[in-house]
Amino acid sequence: MKHKRLCEEGFGEKGNYTIILPIDQGVEHGPVDAFYSTDHPEMLDIDYQVEFIAELLHEGLVGATALPKRTANLLCKKYPHLAKDVILKLNHGNNLNQTLEPSQAIYASSQDAADMGGVGFTIYPGSSNQDDMINYFGKIQEHKPDNVKSILWSYPRGGDFYKTTIKTIMHAAYMAAQLEPDVIKVKMPTNNGDVTNIVKAACGIPVVFSGGQYVDTYNMIDYAKRIKEAGGYGMIVGRNVFQRERHQAKHLLKEIHRVFRES
Amino acid sequence: MKHKRLCEEGFGEKGNYTIILPIDQGVEHGPVDAFYSTDHPEMLDIDYQVEFIAELLHEGLVGATALPKRTANLLCKKYPHLAKDVILKLNHGNNLNQTLEPSQAIYASSQDAADMGGVGFTIYPGSSNQDDMINYFGKIQEHKPDNVKSILWSYPRGGDFYKTTIKTIMHAAYMAAQLEPDVIKVKMPTNNGDVTNIVKAACGIPVVFSGGQYVDTYNMIDYAKRIKEAGGYGMIVGRNVFQRERHQAKHLLKEIHRVFRES
Amino acid sequence: MKHKRLCEEGFGEKGNYTIILPIDQGVEHGPVDAFYSTDHPEMLDIDYQVEFIAELLHEGLVGATALPKRTANLLCKKYPHLAKDVILKLNHGNNLNQTLEPSQAIYASSQDAADMGGVGFTIYPGSSNQDDMINYFGKIQEHKPDNVKSILWSYPRGGDFYKTTIKTIMHAAYMAAQLEPDVIKVKMPTNNGDVTNIVKAACGIPVVFSGGQYVDTYNMIDYAKRIKEAGGYGMIVGRNVFQRERHQAKHLLKEIHRVFRES
Amino acid sequence: MKHKRLCEEGFGEKGNYTIILPIDQGVEHGPVDAFYSTDHPEMLDIDYQVEFIAELLHEGLVGATALPKRTANLLCKKYPHLAKDVILKLNHGNNLNQTLEPSQAIYASSQDAADMGGVGFTIYPGSSNQDDMINYFGKIQEHKPDNVKSILWSYPRGGDFYKTTIKTIMHAAYMAAQLEPDVIKVKMPTNNGDVTNIVKAACGIPVVFSGGQYVDTYNMIDYAKRIKEAGGYGMIVGRNVFQRERHQAKHLLKEIHRVFRES
Amino acid sequence: MKHKRLCEEGFGEKGNYTIILPIDQGVEHGPVDAFYSTDHPEMLDIDYQVEFIAELLHEGLVGATALPKRTANLLCKKYPHLAKDVILKLNHGNNLNQTLEPSQAIYASSQDAADMGGVGFTIYPGSSNQDDMINYFGKIQEHKPDNVKSILWSYPRGGDFYKTTIKTIMHAAYMAAQLEPDVIKVKMPTNNGDVTNIVKAACGIPVVFSGGQYVDTYNMIDYAKRIKEAGGYGMIVGRNVFQRERHQAKHLLKEIHRVFRES
Repeated sequence: MKHKRLCEEGFGEKGNYTIILPIDQGVEHGPVDAFYSTDHPEMLDIDYQVEFIAELLHEGLVGATALPKRTANLLCKKYPHLAKDVILKLNHGNNLNQTLEPSQAIYASSQDAADMGGVGFTIYPGSSNQDDMINYFGKIQEHKPDNVKSILWSYPRGGDFYKTTIKTIMHAAYMAAQLEPDVIKVKMPTNNGDVTNIVKAACGIPVVFSGGQYVDTYNMIDYAKRIKEAGGYGMIVGRNVFQRERHQAKHLLKEIHRVFRES
Repeated sequence: MKHKRLCEEGFGEKGNYTIILPIDQGVEHGPVDAFYSTDHPEMLDIDYQVEFIAELLHEGLVGATALPKRTANLLCKKYPHLAKDVILKLNHGNNLNQTLEPSQAIYASSQDAADMGGVGFTIYPGSSNQDDMINYFGKIQEHKPDNVKSILWSYPRGGDFYKTTIKTIMHAAYMAAQLEPDVIKVKMPTNNGDVTNIVKAACGIPVVFSGGQYVDTYNMIDYAKRIKEAGGYGMIVGRNVFQRERHQAKHLLKEIHRVFRES
Repeated sequence: MKHKRLCEEGFGEKGNYTIILPIDQGVEHGPVDAFYSTDHPEMLDIDYQVEFIAELLHEGLVGATALPKRTANLLCKKYPHLAKDVILKLNHGNNLNQTLEPSQAIYASSQDAADMGGVGFTIYPGSSNQDDMINYFGKIQEHKPDNVKSILWSYPRGGDFYKTTIKTIMHAAYMAAQLEPDVIKVKMPTNNGDVTNIVKAACGIPVVFSGGQYVDTYNMIDYAKRIKEAGGYGMIVGRNVFQRERHQAKHLLKEIHRVFRES
Repeated sequence: MKHKRLCEEGFGEKGNYTIILPIDQGVEHGPVDAFYSTDHPEMLDIDYQVEFIAELLHEGLVGATALPKRTANLLCKKYPHLAKDVILKLNHGNNLNQTLEPSQAIYASSQDAADMGGVGFTIYPGSSNQDDMINYFGKIQEHKPDNVKSILWSYPRGGDFYKTTIKTIMHAAYMAAQLEPDVIKVKMPTNNGDVTNIVKAACGIPVVFSGGQYVDTYNMIDYAKRIKEAGGYGMIVGRNVFQRERHQAKHLLKEIHRVFRES
Repeated sequence: MKHKRLCEEGFGEKGNYTIILPIDQGVEHGPVDAFYSTDHPEMLDIDYQVEFIAELLHEGLVGATALPKRTANLLCKKYPHLAKDVILKLNHGNNLNQTLEPSQAIYASSQDAADMGGVGFTIYPGSSNQDDMINYFGKIQEHKPDNVKSILWSYPRGGDFYKTTIKTIMHAAYMAAQLEPDVIKVKMPTNNGDVTNIVKAACGIPVVFSGGQYVDTYNMIDYAKRIKEAGGYGMIVGRNVFQRERHQAKHLLKEIHRVFRES
């Protein structure tokens, strides 16, 4: 398989794959837990962060980066040639008050992404806000500039259903698919097992899986193999990059590429 | 009576009938329960699913198909000549979190159906969201392209009233009728009995009845007879197709046609 | 006094009166309780119903009819010359789930009534939805075609205040009057007594009183006398028509006319 | 000080004052408590009411009148030359169901007041609806015709704070002032005391005080003196007019004028 | 470092700083607690207040002032040359009813600030209204005149998280930063400590810290030093000005300037 960047022709097509670097944890978990308490405390410095993202893009270690508005704009200003690899994340939740119903506020509009490569949006199937979130994504699809791709995060939340079984993730993937984004992002199931049916549940729309919490390199490689074998389109790796030192993070990304490239 | 497809002149008129194939269970029940755990696990593969729907349309076994957005678009792309038999289902609920109030989110707009034959929409009379759902259907009627038909699912939900008596279904049918869709879809009552008054409650708007849960062929034929005798316009058969093997499903559909055709 | 139809000059003016036939009970109570269980079970058949309404209009027994959208459109299609006697009822409640807060959903817009004589709308003073209902009527008044009259149903609901005293009905009538519809519809108080002050509470806007539940002819005549003496503009009689056989219903209407005509 | 009518140049300016007659109690308390049970039961007759208001305006006993839509329109139709002294009250609450959260529904738009002198609007600082009410007044200010003045009623409601202390009324006056209406209306504090600081809290916007419940003439005169000494712009007197016989009501108004005129 | 006024070139840039005077406490706490009970009771008089603000601006002791609508308009009318130093605060909460969910109502639009220097807006991260507040700020950013700066107050509220730790303030600052206002305003953490990471959490957007409750001059100087050392852009000082006599307030401001000016 060939690695494709968001800006490249062939992105999203069968036979290709991608790795996406998301930096949206700062809004959700706060900059201390997201950056300062990791092996990359320098990431708290936005200039360092932007350099780091650009470096991974320049070295081809990631094919796209999902960023909140300020970070996205700083990157695009400093490296205009990278703008088409940026996915502007439009909505974000935060964990400040965990008694609130799961939801995400709107931080940016699809117009803000007019010069970027894509927009990202999250829905929480199963939450009390799911209808509003789904309805809003419909508006984004309708109004976003044609050349801007849409990437839909679909994470079950709320209620007491067991959220990370293959069955539940398939449901979330299928709901996302029927909204017809360009790419769907789901979580890896916590129980082991074949993720082929998750890919099938996406109805032909490319699926990227999130690496989720820190796991050791051996496990990440295993994730990558299972995703590739299942026909997944790639991975979105955030915390597993920031919670490693720079050379180890790069090593991990290279190993993941090796898995996907071997055909 | 003559079988009419959604795209044909005479659809909806007295003396004709139709059979509609809905594939909207995937969003509501998830693809595992809707497809994978049935006698048609291959339906999990969207390409297989689209072929299967097209085959039933090509063979004239169904006259229309109600699909969520992604499935509808894939079918229309591959078989443009079938687009006018497609009912784009605009809203969907899901059973992920059963503690939520019954509701449906908007997955598509009537503009998305501009090249298709119809739009489908669900209201839940008796639910706490009934007013919003009813109001929204008014907007659809006002804004949908003129040549796109509207099919209204009217399912009582919420509260503790006994939902599937003939009396309650008549109430749901009458509410739907006063919104003036092109076709009304209701459930068969669980108790036996004449459904003539349900058809009358629809005020002259054609009514199709859903087959509902899996029942054996004998019972489905009985449903068909009761619907025909009552002046119903036809049936909408989903789970009773997927929960049968292909040749048995086709056999069932043919038997249903036989009932309606005999005049 | 002279009987005036909605389409006639002089409708609403002092010295005239009218009798309105409402067929909006089907949405609220369901077609079984509204039609099938009455002395007019044939009313379940929409064609019979439309004929019956037309007959009462043709014979001058009623001066206007308040109908939900489907029924209104069928009548206007079959008897275009009666369209200007039709009041299109825009919103309706239903009694399917009696644990819900009292409310009414929107079934039609004032544009749908462009070729008819009027629009009808209900507010529930005292209910938790009263503000939304009142605000919505303001929008109707602002946007409805100029030649379409507005008739406002004002029924106290919700809370534990005693709803059908003269005092409460006066409050509801006064609230309605300050919204300036063309006609106000209120209930007869359950306790006996002079209804002059209810008419005064309407600030000069013509008031029609509903006959309410089935009562015997003697009582209906008594209602009519009390309304006429109080300066009321007429009556709106639905259930007391359907719960009588046809000739008895016509007899009742003639008796009511006799009361109002005698000056 | 000189009495100024709403239509006169100098209305609202220092050195002048006014007395406003409000007839908005009918919506809030119902016409029985507001009119029929008072010493002016004739006020239940809208024609009498309009004559009475006109008489007080013609005799210069009041400088403006705050009316709900129907009453305002009747007055303006009969006495077009008085239209510029009319304040159209746009929103009203009612006391039918006292278990509801304090709120007011919209009965009229500022466009309805295009030919009148002003619009009146109420906010309830401290209520759960305060944000919506405040936001709505912002829209009114933005969209009302330029030559129409705005008078803002600011009444603390909801919660358990002690609502009629000078401190609370100052807070309500200050909030109102920051919305920049042309005139602010507040209640007299129930405890005695200097109301100078309430006037100061209004940031230079003229303040009129409501007379509130029936009090004897001695007390009304005392109110007037305290308001005048404090730099208040005048009084709004409703119930204290209706709960007196006509000549006594006029006498009271004349006494109030005497207080303000003496400089 | 050089002191820059809001109207000056260089405002917001590195190497510069500012001191902002906010007079928005009147809406939140009421004029008694905000003005009358302080060492500046004269501030209750809006004319005195406007003079005082103007004096501090004229003497260069503050570089901008954040005002509610009425106060802002009075200042701009009397001193048009100061308008470009005015930040119009668009939303305000109030403490009248402390049982309500934390929220702020809209008192002004960004169009009202067309001739002023900036608009101020508050979000409450962690509150049940946070999504609406964040969404609304997006609209302001989209629609405000280009030459009007935006200053975003980001104050965690609601829930039981410990709100004034450095970690929580960093989270609030980061959320604000991703909305890309021109300036962010946060609170000083209650525990001592280096605030460098709060500045970093703002992703390069200038941060001003509020002085908060009355503290003695020694502590204010200490705050100023910590802010300057951390790279903060300045301070917003309200209560610490009003709760001092005029010459002491000026002395305090001069001391703060001295700290920032020494480089």
